[in-house]
Amino acid sequence: MTVEVTRLASGLTVATESMPHLETATLGVWVGAGSRSEQAAEHGISHLLEHMAFKGTTTRSARRIAEEIEAVGGEINAATSVENTCYYARILADDLALSADILADILTRSVFDPEELERESHVVLQEIGAADDAPEDLVFDLLQERAFPDQPIGRPILGTPETVAAFRREHLTDYLDRHYLTSAAVVTAAGRVDHAQVVALVEDRFAEMPTGAAPAEDTATWVGGEVREVRDLSEAQVTLGFEGRPYASPDHHAAQILATVLGGGMSSRLFQEIREKKGLCYSVSAFHWGYRETGLFGIHAATGEDDLDRLMVGLGEEIVRVIDDVDEAEVRRAKAQLRAGLLMSLESPVSRASQIARQMLIWGRPLETREILEKVEAVDRPQLLRLAGEIFLGSTPTLAYVGPVGGAVGADAFAERLTRRA
Amino acid sequence: MTVEVTRLASGLTVATESMPHLETATLGVWVGAGSRSEQAAEHGISHLLEHMAFKGTTTRSARRIAEEIEAVGGEINAATSVENTCYYARILADDLALSADILADILTRSVFDPEELERESHVVLQEIGAADDAPEDLVFDLLQERAFPDQPIGRPILGTPETVAAFRREHLTDYLDRHYLTSAAVVTAAGRVDHAQVVALVEDRFAEMPTGAAPAEDTATWVGGEVREVRDLSEAQVTLGFEGRPYASPDHHAAQILATVLGGGMSSRLFQEIREKKGLCYSVSAFHWGYRETGLFGIHAATGEDDLDRLMVGLGEEIVRVIDDVDEAEVRRAKAQLRAGLLMSLESPVSRASQIARQMLIWGRPLETREILEKVEAVDRPQLLRLAGEIFLGSTPTLAYVGPVGGAVGADAFAERLTRRA
Repeated sequence: MTVEVTRLASGLTVATESMPHLETATLGVWVGAGSRSEQAAEHGISHLLEHMAFKGTTTRSARRIAEEIEAVGGEINAATSVENTCYYARILADDLALSADILADILTRSVFDPEELERESHVVLQEIGAADDAPEDLVFDLLQERAFPDQPIGRPILGTPETVAAFRREHLTDYLDRHYLTSAAVVTAAGRVDHAQVVALVEDRFAEMPTGAAPAEDTATWVGGEVREVRDLSEAQVTLGFEGRPYASPDHHAAQILATVLGGGMSSRLFQEIREKKGLCYSVSAFHWGYRETGLFGIHAATGEDDLDRLMVGLGEEIVRVIDDVDEAEVRRAKAQLRAGLLMSLESPVSRASQIARQMLIWGRPLETREILEKVEAVDRPQLLRLAGEIFLGSTPTLAYVGPVGGAVGADAFAERLTRRA
Repeated sequence: MTVEVTRLASGLTVATESMPHLETATLGVWVGAGSRSEQAAEHGISHLLEHMAFKGTTTRSARRIAEEIEAVGGEINAATSVENTCYYARILADDLALSADILADILTRSVFDPEELERESHVVLQEIGAADDAPEDLVFDLLQERAFPDQPIGRPILGTPETVAAFRREHLTDYLDRHYLTSAAVVTAAGRVDHAQVVALVEDRFAEMPTGAAPAEDTATWVGGEVREVRDLSEAQVTLGFEGRPYASPDHHAAQILATVLGGGMSSRLFQEIREKKGLCYSVSAFHWGYRETGLFGIHAATGEDDLDRLMVGLGEEIVRVIDDVDEAEVRRAKAQLRAGLLMSLESPVSRASQIARQMLIWGRPLETREILEKVEAVDRPQLLRLAGEIFLGSTPTLAYVGPVGGAVGADAFAERLTRRA
C-alpha cells in the first residue's frame, strides 16, 4: 500500500495507488456533498444533479459523452449518498486521459439544458416509482426517515415526485456552485496508474473547478419511533435502528464488530438463532453506518405475516443477549472477518479508489491498512459490552415496517422488552 | 493467463489460475446441474439442496461450518442457476486447505437431517415470498416461464411453496446421487494458489465424490406468448424475449454484440432513444443468455402506466431499426465494451474462478482470452444483420408484464408491429 497524495494549488487533492500488475484502472471524483447537504427546498437535487451531469457540456452532447467512453470499452458510474456523491470511470489503463477529460467536462462544464432537465426529471420519477415498488428498498428509506425526521439526513436521496418536478436550471447551478468546490472534492485513481501523470491530467482538466469553502451543515438529531406501511405482500419487511457512532468516533470499529457479531455473516447470532435454529427468515442481518456526527446501527429481516410476532420476539431476545455478553471467540471471528474483507477489497481498483477517497474526505489523508487493522485489533470485550448497552438502551429505537404489518409490535412496546431486563 | 488443468483418476477435473500478486484466493466447485436438471416432481430441489448443503455433515454441524470458515475471515457463497450450481469460498491464501475441506464435506458428506430440512424449507418459503414481492425479479421469472412453458428450463429456480414443502430427505439424496458426480463437476481456484497444492487437496478431500454419468436432459423448445400480472404498483415492469442462441453456437458472440448495440450501455440504442431522447424509463437494457441448445435474447424496461404505450411502441421501433441496419461504429464500440469487460473480469479471483469453471463445463477446456477476443473481433455487420432478422422475426416473442399493465399491448399485436415492415 503506497498511496501518493498531491494537493494542487487550486485546493483540489489527488490521491493514487499504483497496482502495477493490473491492466485496468479506476479514476474518480468524490465530492463531499450529498442528500444531507440540501436545503429544505432542494430535496433530491444532489441526485438529480448526478443525473444531469451526463446530459451535455459546452463541448460534448449527452450522446457523445456515452459514445466516447464506451468506444474504448470504458464505463462511467455515478452514485449519490447521504454525505457524498461520486463519479468514476473504469477503463483500460491507456485510456486514463480520456476518462479525466470526460469527468472534468461533466463536473465543470455541464450546461443543464432545460429540455434535457425536463426529460431527466421524468426519468428520475420512474426511478422513484421503482424504489417505491420494491419493499426491501422502501423499508430502508422509511427507517432513515423515522430515525431522523424532518432533517436533511433523514430524507430519501431520490427526492419526491413534487420536489424533483419543480427543479429548474438555476437550482442546479446554485447547488453546484455551493458544493462542487476544489476544497470539498478529491480525485482518486487506483490500478495501473502513474501518480505524476494523474496529477498532471487533473491539474490541466480540472482547472475550471471553483475554489471556496462549502457551507456548514446542520447537526443531525436522532429521534426514533415507528412507521408502518401496510401493503398486501407475502413478506413483512422489518428494519430496526438505534443511534450509531460517527465514523471518526473511537467506538466506530467497535460498532462494526458489534454489527458483525450480531448479524454480519453465517456464524452471526441473528443468522444462527433466527434463521438456522428458528427457520424464521431468509434475510436477517445487522449493519452499522457511520456519519459525520452520528450513525445508524440497524437490523434488517423479512418474514411471513404468521411468523412476524415470533421474529420480533427473537430479535428482541438477541439484542438483550448481546447486551449481556459477548464471547471472546465471537469477537476474534468478527475481527478476522473485517480483516479479510479489508484485504480482499484492496485487490479491486474500484474499491480501492473509493476507500482512499472516503478516507481523504473524512481524515484528510489516506489511512494505512496496518493502522486500520490495529484499530480493529484493539477493540476488546469490555468496550463492546459498554457500547452494546449504550447503543441498544441509550437511544429510542426506530422500527420501520412494510407489508402485512398491521398487527406488528410498536416501537414503545419493543423498547420496553429491551429495558425491562436492564 | 495460464490456466493449469488436471483430470484426477476419479474423473473430477481441477483447473487453477495463479495470480501471484494477490493475497487472497477463491476456491469453488461448479456442478453441471441446475433447475433444468430436475424431474417433474423435483421442482426447486436444486436450490433447496444448495441450502441444505450448509445444514450439517457427518463431521460438522451447520454452526461449525459457518464458524470455521468465518473464524479465518473467509466466506462461502453458493448459487443455483438453470444449468449449474456453484459453491465457492473467498479466503486469504493461507486458508485454502480449510476451504477445500469444508467444501468437500458439505458436498459429499451432508446428512440432510429431517428437522433441519423442515426448518430450511420454511426459510426457502420466505425467499420465494420475497421474490414474489419484488416486481423486478418476478417479471424475469414470468418471462422465462412463458418462453419455455411446462419445461424444466422455464420453471422458477426457487420452486413453489407446494413443491418445496413436499421434499423429504430421500428426494435430496436421489438428486445428489444422480447429479453431483465427478464427471459432472469441476473444481477451480484463482488467486494466490499453487496448482499442485490444489490438486493434492482436491484429490484427498473429494475422494468420496461418486463417479458415473449424469442423465441426459430434455431438449428445450421455445414457445413464447404473453403473461401479465396486474398489480397496483407505480411502475409497469416489462420484459420482452426472443429465442437466442446456444452458448456454443457460432452466433453466440454475435448475439452478445447485438444485445450490447441494442441495450448494453449508455451509448446503446435503447438507452439513447428510450431514456435519453424520450425520457420514458430509468431502467432499459437488453441481454443475451445462452443455454446448451437454446438461448434467450431479452429486453427489460420499466415505466409508469401513462407512458407504457409509448414505451412499447418505442421498443418495437428500435427492434425494427436494428433489423434494418447497424453502424460500423456501433459494432466497434460493442466489441470494445466486451473486450474491456473481459479484461476487467480477469483481475478478480471470483470472476476468474467462475469463468474457468463455466468454460470447463461447456468446452471441457479453459479458453484463452486471446481466443475469445478473436471470436468477438471476427463478428461482422452482415452476420449481425442476418442474426437480428433471425432472432426478432424467427421466433414467437414472449412478453411478460407486472404492475399496472391491464391495457398493455399483447404479444400478437406486438409481433405484428415487427413483421409488418419485414
